[in-house]
Amino acid sequence: MDNCLNPSTKIKVRGYHLDLYGHVNNTRYLEFLEEARWNVKDLFFDIPKLHNQDLNLVVVNININYRASARLDDVLEIFTKVSRIGHKSVTLKQEIFFENTDKIVADAEVTFVIYDKKMGKAVELPVEIRQQFGRLATSQKMD
Amino acid sequence: MDNCLNPSTKIKVRGYHLDLYGHVNNTRYLEFLEEARWNVKDLFFDIPKLHNQDLNLVVVNININYRASARLDDVLEIFTKVSRIGHKSVTLKQEIFFENTDKIVADAEVTFVIYDKKMGKAVELPVEIRQQFGRLATSQKMD
Amino acid sequence: MDNCLNPSTKIKVRGYHLDLYGHVNNTRYLEFLEEARWNVKDLFFDIPKLHNQDLNLVVVNININYRASARLDDVLEIFTKVSRIGHKSVTLKQEIFFENTDKIVADAEVTFVIYDKKMGKAVELPVEIRQQFGRLATSQKMD
Amino acid sequence: MDNCLNPSTKIKVRGYHLDLYGHVNNTRYLEFLEEARWNVKDLFFDIPKLHNQDLNLVVVNININYRASARLDDVLEIFTKVSRIGHKSVTLKQEIFFENTDKIVADAEVTFVIYDKKMGKAVELPVEIRQQFGRLATSQKMD
Repeated sequence: MDNCLNPSTKIKVRGYHLDLYGHVNNTRYLEFLEEARWNVKDLFFDIPKLHNQDLNLVVVNININYRASARLDDVLEIFTKVSRIGHKSVTLKQEIFFENTDKIVADAEVTFVIYDKKMGKAVELPVEIRQQFGRLATSQKMD
Repeated sequence: MDNCLNPSTKIKVRGYHLDLYGHVNNTRYLEFLEEARWNVKDLFFDIPKLHNQDLNLVVVNININYRASARLDDVLEIFTKVSRIGHKSVTLKQEIFFENTDKIVADAEVTFVIYDKKMGKAVELPVEIRQQFGRLATSQKMD
Repeated sequence: MDNCLNPSTKIKVRGYHLDLYGHVNNTRYLEFLEEARWNVKDLFFDIPKLHNQDLNLVVVNININYRASARLDDVLEIFTKVSRIGHKSVTLKQEIFFENTDKIVADAEVTFVIYDKKMGKAVELPVEIRQQFGRLATSQKMD
Repeated sequence: MDNCLNPSTKIKVRGYHLDLYGHVNNTRYLEFLEEARWNVKDLFFDIPKLHNQDLNLVVVNININYRASARLDDVLEIFTKVSRIGHKSVTLKQEIFFENTDKIVADAEVTFVIYDKKMGKAVELPVEIRQQFGRLATSQKMD
């Protein structure tokens, strides 16, 4: 179908991404993953509306495996999928590949909760958000 | 005994550490953890000597839990311990607290291998490195 | 003519770019400018070839004016031009606009020298590099 | 007198500060300078009080010269002084040295205005802020 339902994010490795080994720094990958998640959020969520409802999507766990090192001028491609929708949390699976290959650079699971600022705690996923993550989960079948 | 055997690292939260929510950004915590690990490495490892032997300490996994949000002017204190020494990998446990409290901000397990650049792969931990991680593991009992 | 001769760089402002005021952090703009310069370098320079000749393009001065604040979801567009080619240095002028407007967010002058690693000092601009900056200067007339 | 009136900031160069050349990245120096300014602000300004008055200290220009490259394990020492107090702006001069040497790594002038959020524009420096910058200017004579 239409792979624009859940597009990948491409990032070209630049000098300022590298560390003393000439590899992309561990920390920088988290920004790459966050960039990819914002691309997904832009499509599936109305973040300003959530903020107006005093609801924030808050990351509570990141579990990332570094599997290969990326260097200057490599182009990385990041795929973001839903791996689990629970009552109070959602886990995304993100994979970073060298572009146009099946060679993986890093993969991560990123778990969110919905934090209600007025209540000062994580709450059950609102129906609307659960539905949007459901749409995201469905979209990935078409990849 | 001497708590300088494995000193903690203190970091004061600055404006440039924060994100749109006024909280320390997820990614920035990885730099805080890395800063704390460098403090440990400075005491226990001769990194330039390792580099001369074409050996790098390479992170292969980070599993981090975000448990509370830190804000401008908070002082964070980071403790780094050895949680597991295997044949080919070592796992450190790092905990970030609000200074002088037992309130935890984040905790992480960080797993390393020794990568031999000449062989192009991870190798068994050299005896010297295993011993230094052993010394680090022992030091933490004195905290 | 063909505006692909010196394309602009577009960056969408994400949560991790912001500071405690909800604005893009001062420091982050330098990464945006560097990203835009890499896009130009990719077109006009053979950086790996320079590195093989032990020549580095080294920034010696950045003079940046912050003129407006950018926020979440703003799309920024960065233009990079040559403003001066000297004997030993080149100055680029970079301007960041809100996309599709003439409202400027920041502008900067960035001055480079060519550093010869073998000689341990900045050297006269090699003819080839001077020519490439000349091509870049010419390309901008077509914008 | 008392050099704690305007203490310097020391930063040890870590792997995550470096770029592909093994040097501290241009962008990272702006964080080092910001860290040093926060240390000064902590002593001379009540930032939360300013925020409560809807006043922000906003950087409008940074002019930085990169004069030497810093590498892994170098310790940098940053000095921050007032170079000019105008009607609507203040300029700080910041210098980064290799610790315990007179060898300079970078120097910068950083210009601030006071931005009044309610009025939506920069305003004349409030008397209290002018006085605090005056105290800071005086303190540096005692260094």
